[in-house]
Amino acid sequence: MSQGIQKNSDVIFQRNTHFLSTAASLVPALQQHRCPALSLVNAVPDASQIHGWRTDSCGTPAGLANREFGPGEEIVVDFGTHCVGYFSLRCEAAGSPPDAPAHLQFIFGETPAEIAEPFSDYEGWLSSSWLQQEDLYLDVLPAHVRLPRRYCCRYVKIKVISTSAKFSLRLSDIYLTTVTSADPSALENLSHQDALLGQIDQVSVLTLRNCMQEVFEDGPKRDRRLWLGDLRLQALVNYQTYGQNDLVRRCLYLFAGVTREDGMVSSNLFMKPEIIADDTFLLDYALFFVATLADYIAATDDLTTQNDLWPTAVRQMELALERVGENGILHDSEDWWAFIDWHESLNKQAPAQGVLIYCLKKGWELAQRCDHPRVAWLDQQIGRLEAAARNELWDEEKGFFVSGAQAQISCASQVWLVLAGVGEEEFRARVMANLLTTPPETGMNTPYMMHHFIDALISVGQTSRAVQEIKKYWGGMVQAGADTFWELYDPKRPDFSPYGSKLINSYCHAWSCTPAYFIRKYGL
Amino acid sequence: MSQGIQKNSDVIFQRNTHFLSTAASLVPALQQHRCPALSLVNAVPDASQIHGWRTDSCGTPAGLANREFGPGEEIVVDFGTHCVGYFSLRCEAAGSPPDAPAHLQFIFGETPAEIAEPFSDYEGWLSSSWLQQEDLYLDVLPAHVRLPRRYCCRYVKIKVISTSAKFSLRLSDIYLTTVTSADPSALENLSHQDALLGQIDQVSVLTLRNCMQEVFEDGPKRDRRLWLGDLRLQALVNYQTYGQNDLVRRCLYLFAGVTREDGMVSSNLFMKPEIIADDTFLLDYALFFVATLADYIAATDDLTTQNDLWPTAVRQMELALERVGENGILHDSEDWWAFIDWHESLNKQAPAQGVLIYCLKKGWELAQRCDHPRVAWLDQQIGRLEAAARNELWDEEKGFFVSGAQAQISCASQVWLVLAGVGEEEFRARVMANLLTTPPETGMNTPYMMHHFIDALISVGQTSRAVQEIKKYWGGMVQAGADTFWELYDPKRPDFSPYGSKLINSYCHAWSCTPAYFIRKYGL
Repeated sequence: MSQGIQKNSDVIFQRNTHFLSTAASLVPALQQHRCPALSLVNAVPDASQIHGWRTDSCGTPAGLANREFGPGEEIVVDFGTHCVGYFSLRCEAAGSPPDAPAHLQFIFGETPAEIAEPFSDYEGWLSSSWLQQEDLYLDVLPAHVRLPRRYCCRYVKIKVISTSAKFSLRLSDIYLTTVTSADPSALENLSHQDALLGQIDQVSVLTLRNCMQEVFEDGPKRDRRLWLGDLRLQALVNYQTYGQNDLVRRCLYLFAGVTREDGMVSSNLFMKPEIIADDTFLLDYALFFVATLADYIAATDDLTTQNDLWPTAVRQMELALERVGENGILHDSEDWWAFIDWHESLNKQAPAQGVLIYCLKKGWELAQRCDHPRVAWLDQQIGRLEAAARNELWDEEKGFFVSGAQAQISCASQVWLVLAGVGEEEFRARVMANLLTTPPETGMNTPYMMHHFIDALISVGQTSRAVQEIKKYWGGMVQAGADTFWELYDPKRPDFSPYGSKLINSYCHAWSCTPAYFIRKYGL
Repeated sequence: MSQGIQKNSDVIFQRNTHFLSTAASLVPALQQHRCPALSLVNAVPDASQIHGWRTDSCGTPAGLANREFGPGEEIVVDFGTHCVGYFSLRCEAAGSPPDAPAHLQFIFGETPAEIAEPFSDYEGWLSSSWLQQEDLYLDVLPAHVRLPRRYCCRYVKIKVISTSAKFSLRLSDIYLTTVTSADPSALENLSHQDALLGQIDQVSVLTLRNCMQEVFEDGPKRDRRLWLGDLRLQALVNYQTYGQNDLVRRCLYLFAGVTREDGMVSSNLFMKPEIIADDTFLLDYALFFVATLADYIAATDDLTTQNDLWPTAVRQMELALERVGENGILHDSEDWWAFIDWHESLNKQAPAQGVLIYCLKKGWELAQRCDHPRVAWLDQQIGRLEAAARNELWDEEKGFFVSGAQAQISCASQVWLVLAGVGEEEFRARVMANLLTTPPETGMNTPYMMHHFIDALISVGQTSRAVQEIKKYWGGMVQAGADTFWELYDPKRPDFSPYGSKLINSYCHAWSCTPAYFIRKYGL
């Protein structure tokens, strides 16, 4: 995810040097792999394709040996799948000695649309600096060029802007040096009898792999950052795939290492030039620290981490509970206080209540292991909040939980209160059944929200329906050509972007990689 | 100068490893100097200025401490004079932690026009890659940036293209690390009683200094290359100023080190990735090898170099003489066989005849020192060519030398045949007087041609007129705000460019720096 605009230069942070040095000791090695360009392609308008473009093959990199490029000429190379890494190529002059610099332009696309539609038309509200491009001036030829920034792409458009009348350019040796901290030797390949589920698993795993860098990044194109909401889901997939639990541990220590002065963890961290906590604080994301820690401890039985980080987890629960009113319900407000989903009109109150109860129960699991006095406290809080959810948020007539002053009925509210385990199992199953038969107008926009929907279905025993929904939703992306799963996907609105342009969406996004978790954990 | 289009990928070159290793042993150390930005300026349209722009001061770099820059905002910094070097600045984020890359654009201008007029409008025939610009994406802030390419500028426009809604940029510590191989301690400062001549001398010296790099470059913005025509003039100024004779020696060995298979020296050399001779061969430029060597030997008495390079000098004379017809006149042709001046309609025959005789006489000086048998041969050739020039090219009625099938009367023909010493002194004085009173339509376009005009005036004793012309022509550039002398200057056509745009002209050009030679050598 990215964040709403919340610009607070006056937040005071505290740093825990023990936690930060522990995190620093866990920096993973990056695996490098040389990936040559596989083919040359053209982007062709095609209304039948999800973003309106397909690519047609038009040659091979070997064929470049016979081609010379002058001003205005361009090629698009295709690396065959989604890659994260550093771009290299060799440029030579053909003709007379080059008597002027060569000016080249590179555009990197995760999707055909990015290399087909001009960036100059971009009018989204996220910074255009996320659009991956580079202008390069080569004073000396031949040159073996390695661009200094890390890119995220399947396609690279290489355009010769200018040479001189005396020389043209030959391009060769085009490759990416891909990077990931995922160790492929740790991965068990799944040969699934359902071909589509097998594909979905593979795409999930590649999505996770390309987001696994020095931390679990949310998206290697954008924001390239450690977000708690993404981390929680990546960790779940990791336990079922690469099993690189030290990377989860590192990320937990990072969040605990820089907190607001009251102890709240930030929604996300920047890694460079040093560990910086963003000034965006979200109730649900902070609570996911508790859930992520509990999942990690359940996967590892790592007592040191449990003892080190439990106080941070307790603090997140305490702070969230401060927002609960006399009536046992989270205080609602118009500002950017919880995330839940990328949805303009979604009211956050009821779904956040679900997240709170869900995470308190995760906290209760941890307290059972290490802090018995807190068990009773959590029992009491959970009981109060569950009762309040039933009393204050449940609309018996509609058969749905409602949220906010306008009693909004949203998918998110049902999903999260079901995941929180509010009500008996039969009651929750009815809520989910109702959700399936009469879907509320306020739907789900992201694979992130869809994850929780699938999780909720499984939680009420609707496993086959969960499989069906995975195949429909994530399978839809696979059928649309996804090499990795996208940050945003709404089959009815293929160009949907919360940022104002599909070009700036991330097409390899951590929160979308969870089918591998469901498929592998539940043997779907 | 730059070259016409002559694209010959099949030229065979020979390399002399002794000459090239001698040249390599003479690579000069570059002096580095840190030059901070001195002020902030705005470019303001002003029809009274030569290129239609002036700059108005609008602040100081110190004032940047209080400013924050968002998308679309820009500043222009002024370094106070023309500089060659590497650009550095510090960028910091203001506001929240930077949650997107910062995209900045830099435009470097020797003149206000370059930072005021959009490069996107450029339609000249030289490569647009010479226009000095850079797009920079900073993934991590704060950043101390040092751009990797060498630039040539007085002004730098810094434009913020994008940040994000959460942060803006602070800019500080803006400086250039200038480079030159000229040693300022070797320079005697001239305090001239004529203020304008003093200024002209200073601007000349700065022009030379900024062109003195690992070789004598023609222009540090463009072409950044070793051209023989420029080298000859730079060497003359150097003997009167920095006296770095080893740099002249190095350049002579470079030209002799890579020649065409028949021994002809190229008009210019590229230094990187290795010494490459360009495939542009010009009769006048090749002959200037002889003149430059003779001037160098006269200045240094360096017998080793004389003995090493004399055969190369002889070969240039032999090859030029092959072009001389039975009538003793150089064969004319429509191709790019001699340079003489940047002039679309200039016929090269008569001026090239002058260059040939001039350089044979320089060769004669050398032969006197080291190769007596050649003296007689040269005597004979010079006599034949001079007689032919008088018989075939002189139009007694018009009082001018004529050139080519159309009997063109140009300034260049008169200047070069006078410099060649064709005719008695009194005759030559009459030619120059005639040139002054009834200037031919085919005039002079460059400071390079103007140099030879001044030299011709002095050669016939018209020293005070030479001073007057220097003050008018080079003084005109000084009065128009030149920090260094320009490649092209025609007071009547301020925007003249042989390349189709004044933006691509070089505004610090070696061949324009010769007033310091005249002023200092002749005590003007």
